[in-house]
Amino acid sequence: MKKVTVTVLPYGKRVKARIGDSVLDLLRKANIEVTSYCGGAGTCGKCKVKIVNGESISPLTQEEKNLLTEEELKSGYRLSCRTKVLKNTTIYVPGESLVEEEIREKGRFEIKTPLMPSVKCFRVSVVQPSLEDLRSDIERIKDILKSVYGIHVSLIDPLSLTYAPDFIRKKNWNFNVLVRNENEILGFKPVDEDKIYGLAIDIGTTTIGMYIVDLKNGNVVSSGSILNPQVKFGEDVISRLGYILRNGERGLRELNKVLIEGLNSLIEKLSARANISTQDIVDVVVCGNTLMHHIFLNINPLSLASSPFVPHLSSPFDVKARELGLNVLRTAYVHTLPIEAGFVGADNVAVMISLFPKLSGGPYLVIDIGTNGEIVCGNKDRLLSASCATGPALEGATITHGMRAQLGAIEKVWIEKGSYKVSYKVIGNVKPRGICGSGIIDAVSELFRSGLISPSGRFVQDKRCERLRRRENTVEFVIAWGKDTATGKDIAITQKDIRSVQLAKAALYAGAKILVNRLGKGKPKRVYLAGSFGNYIDIKSAYILGMFPYCSIGDIVAKGNLAGLGSCMALLNRKKREEAEKYAKRVRYVELAATEEFDKEFLDALSFPHARDSFPDLEKLLL
Amino acid sequence: MKKVTVTVLPYGKRVKARIGDSVLDLLRKANIEVTSYCGGAGTCGKCKVKIVNGESISPLTQEEKNLLTEEELKSGYRLSCRTKVLKNTTIYVPGESLVEEEIREKGRFEIKTPLMPSVKCFRVSVVQPSLEDLRSDIERIKDILKSVYGIHVSLIDPLSLTYAPDFIRKKNWNFNVLVRNENEILGFKPVDEDKIYGLAIDIGTTTIGMYIVDLKNGNVVSSGSILNPQVKFGEDVISRLGYILRNGERGLRELNKVLIEGLNSLIEKLSARANISTQDIVDVVVCGNTLMHHIFLNINPLSLASSPFVPHLSSPFDVKARELGLNVLRTAYVHTLPIEAGFVGADNVAVMISLFPKLSGGPYLVIDIGTNGEIVCGNKDRLLSASCATGPALEGATITHGMRAQLGAIEKVWIEKGSYKVSYKVIGNVKPRGICGSGIIDAVSELFRSGLISPSGRFVQDKRCERLRRRENTVEFVIAWGKDTATGKDIAITQKDIRSVQLAKAALYAGAKILVNRLGKGKPKRVYLAGSFGNYIDIKSAYILGMFPYCSIGDIVAKGNLAGLGSCMALLNRKKREEAEKYAKRVRYVELAATEEFDKEFLDALSFPHARDSFPDLEKLLL
Repeated sequence: MKKVTVTVLPYGKRVKARIGDSVLDLLRKANIEVTSYCGGAGTCGKCKVKIVNGESISPLTQEEKNLLTEEELKSGYRLSCRTKVLKNTTIYVPGESLVEEEIREKGRFEIKTPLMPSVKCFRVSVVQPSLEDLRSDIERIKDILKSVYGIHVSLIDPLSLTYAPDFIRKKNWNFNVLVRNENEILGFKPVDEDKIYGLAIDIGTTTIGMYIVDLKNGNVVSSGSILNPQVKFGEDVISRLGYILRNGERGLRELNKVLIEGLNSLIEKLSARANISTQDIVDVVVCGNTLMHHIFLNINPLSLASSPFVPHLSSPFDVKARELGLNVLRTAYVHTLPIEAGFVGADNVAVMISLFPKLSGGPYLVIDIGTNGEIVCGNKDRLLSASCATGPALEGATITHGMRAQLGAIEKVWIEKGSYKVSYKVIGNVKPRGICGSGIIDAVSELFRSGLISPSGRFVQDKRCERLRRRENTVEFVIAWGKDTATGKDIAITQKDIRSVQLAKAALYAGAKILVNRLGKGKPKRVYLAGSFGNYIDIKSAYILGMFPYCSIGDIVAKGNLAGLGSCMALLNRKKREEAEKYAKRVRYVELAATEEFDKEFLDALSFPHARDSFPDLEKLLL
Repeated sequence: MKKVTVTVLPYGKRVKARIGDSVLDLLRKANIEVTSYCGGAGTCGKCKVKIVNGESISPLTQEEKNLLTEEELKSGYRLSCRTKVLKNTTIYVPGESLVEEEIREKGRFEIKTPLMPSVKCFRVSVVQPSLEDLRSDIERIKDILKSVYGIHVSLIDPLSLTYAPDFIRKKNWNFNVLVRNENEILGFKPVDEDKIYGLAIDIGTTTIGMYIVDLKNGNVVSSGSILNPQVKFGEDVISRLGYILRNGERGLRELNKVLIEGLNSLIEKLSARANISTQDIVDVVVCGNTLMHHIFLNINPLSLASSPFVPHLSSPFDVKARELGLNVLRTAYVHTLPIEAGFVGADNVAVMISLFPKLSGGPYLVIDIGTNGEIVCGNKDRLLSASCATGPALEGATITHGMRAQLGAIEKVWIEKGSYKVSYKVIGNVKPRGICGSGIIDAVSELFRSGLISPSGRFVQDKRCERLRRRENTVEFVIAWGKDTATGKDIAITQKDIRSVQLAKAALYAGAKILVNRLGKGKPKRVYLAGSFGNYIDIKSAYILGMFPYCSIGDIVAKGNLAGLGSCMALLNRKKREEAEKYAKRVRYVELAATEEFDKEFLDALSFPHARDSFPDLEKLLL
């Protein structure tokens, strides 16, 4: 196969490629992570590159004509997923196309649960072998665990057998034994090294949250998050699933590999920050939506790609960390929390165990909006769940100037009634590059409150406002003028963006309303927002848009990353794992698309605000 | 470090070595397997090589002066373990120093036990997912295993999860499930592929026996043996243990690696011979002496190197075959049988479960002579065991012209009374190269019967016999004249060889007698010989030497490879594994060296035959 050389600017990196390779693929191979919401399907228009010499690549496609502006086309911009290299060439990757690390963290919290970790450290003082006592090393260790601690160990991880004989003699038969579930010896440690830690991982489609917890006192010693490195294969669940379907097991391995590498780099960073060794991490609990769960466990997720969208594996699962390549204690296990149904995954189960066991009465509505919206309604005895195809609009994707909640994203927007004066807040207090989910919700809500859009979502064009303008067959409202932005281009909300927000919020509202009605226990006592979405959006803005049914604004409480909290609880208290299994079995999944009322509720919910009487606080908020 | 080049003849192989490397080590690195009974300690004298240019190597050592004949020294022979290279040189490796593959197989047998294998194949027809039935794939498979077969599966091997989602759909939800212990799913197979096999391995110090068994009908479909490739690190347990002690975990890994490689090559050979795939081997049972067991499981065996010689791990152990690198079904387990105590290992447990459950009355004496002699005395209710340091003499090692039971070994010897005419039988019916264990026992027994050695074991030199001669400070009896041998040299039994046999048989006799006395149930009803030793020696010769206490010749029965048979039984019937654990716990190990009577019994037993009244059949045999 003939090879060509592609020079990538501004890096000056020279990459070998085969004739016919797509530019997106060759950039991935060179580890240059270009944003691609659609995973290379040619529909999101985010993977823009500039080609220095147009003759060296394949001709312009219809998708590019649709997705690039005339100005961009004139300047030589192309979509890297639609462009194949034909000759040696030079490509410029603009900063706006690059994937950047998230800078807003998933929330912090305090974990309140009794300390009953799976893995414990037992100090033993063992009688040495003699001619009168010929028991094997392991037998005498088992016997002392039984007589002193009353635990009956029957398993031993084989990896401990290589170093143990020498170790226990050098330590003069006094040492600590790591035991899991009072049943399996994971290894041995010196008596003065008894620190053991657990790792909780919440694998979101966009962000991965991680917590290192001290298993002896329950404190979080280190936490952090990274952008899920799988985003280079597509921003949302559907694009990544598509990538795996197109590429089979090889595709699965690729997505698994970047995930594990990303997790390992974060494990190393957080361990270093807490001043511990990764080998002191003796237990791991993982949650995530069903696709993330499957990819993490190397499960081919094809059953999630077509109706009726069942998971391959839904039960809780225990596997040695080394089988997954995770850089923690070599003999440690990873426990994945159970999955409910379809895309309502282990992350939702983690949310439930963090919240419901403590709640009495009810019902409660819990809304966790990541890239998908997952809703649970009920109380600790009876629960319904559903997944809403909110799409990634609320995370900033599919929005014209949308971006993730990164450095340079507009995260808050205010519009003055009458004057239409705009003020905004940018993450990192730098010049803005785009607008993220919480900013979009604010913007649309403020546009409605200030009368610039009608209840149907259309721009009211007869208003005298210079920010409202017609452009390239659409109408848009300028949030930030080019002179104030990092790109020099205006940042605006278009009619199409408003439609995206309408679709997302209507899906969420309809789903939540159907669950409340089906439960039949009346208006929810509280609406809990889980996840970083709930932490960062302005609840008032969301309320004005009509996102949550049957509630006063005072009923809405943001609870932070409940999935992470639930995972930490399952680390510190193994009973929580049994509880998770019970909740996963107890909750009844409602396939919204299959319900009779969904279409009607969804259509009803598209307008702003669609049903005034269900929003008692709306009038005063609109003032 | 400066390198030199060593040319190895007759191969013409050129090997790079560092100045100061021993010739034995450089030959090992070049994969030329030279016999070394002592593992390089300079005591066995078997690793002879001829040096073409004497100045290129280190000076002659005292050990070499002791162990090589004057003739050999004159011709430039050296011991490769005592010789370090100093300059570029040329080395000739004589055929007699090379390790060759065993050609006599460990015995064959028929396995009689109820068919209750650990791993079974269940055919299922699964209801497909629908909007009304959203159970996950695995859940529905578990449910059908429960409803149709009444088994409750709770574990799934993670490796099956990658291919299963696609596989079960392609097979239209009709397939076979491999389930272990009615508890863990190991994988899936098409409905028309339901063949499953088990593998039994008996790892002897010298020979490895292997059996592939059809788990559906209990037939042995393929069996064979190889020389344990660890022999290049030393012929006996002590030499190999010494190698590991000197080289630490690296040494352990080396010995483990050659073992696993050897096992894998035999697995491939036997699978091909039976026309099955190695991936159809779904279960493995392994036995071996304690050191072989430890090395196989990568357990540092240092506890076996010093008193009180306890194993590190004695309980039965289950580990995934892939963790050990064994080339069978990737998700299969390896089960190692339990160890009794010290060097009385899992092989002896296999012998017990193959024999004792079927025996009534008793007591019985079971003698398994490999490189060590393991003795069990008792009945199924009460058992004593011991290990005798017979040393490798009975396997042909430490004998002047000794060799293993390979092509060219004299395996039977007859001496005519009066004329002292010798006849012999050679393995493979070729010209002899040496004499193996059964031949040595015959030779010494015949020398005694024909009056050429006295009861004390000394040659009776006044006999007129040209074969009996004084040579180099010793006396020897020529079995084969140089004109009739493959090497052109005479093959003889020396006074020293007779002493070695005396030490070995006295250790065995004394051990067996002490066990019979301690049991206190009188004379054994039967003496069972286990292992290839029992299969190939002449029972009459062994009887004349006085190997077995308190028995008539008719009481002695050779049972073949009982360790292999016991392992196969544990494959076909998982109840046998529980039985093995019971036997390992029930048997009381007697540390012979620590008993008061051992020294006296051992000294008494050195002569031929030492106590006529305990050998009722002796007089007529000596005629």
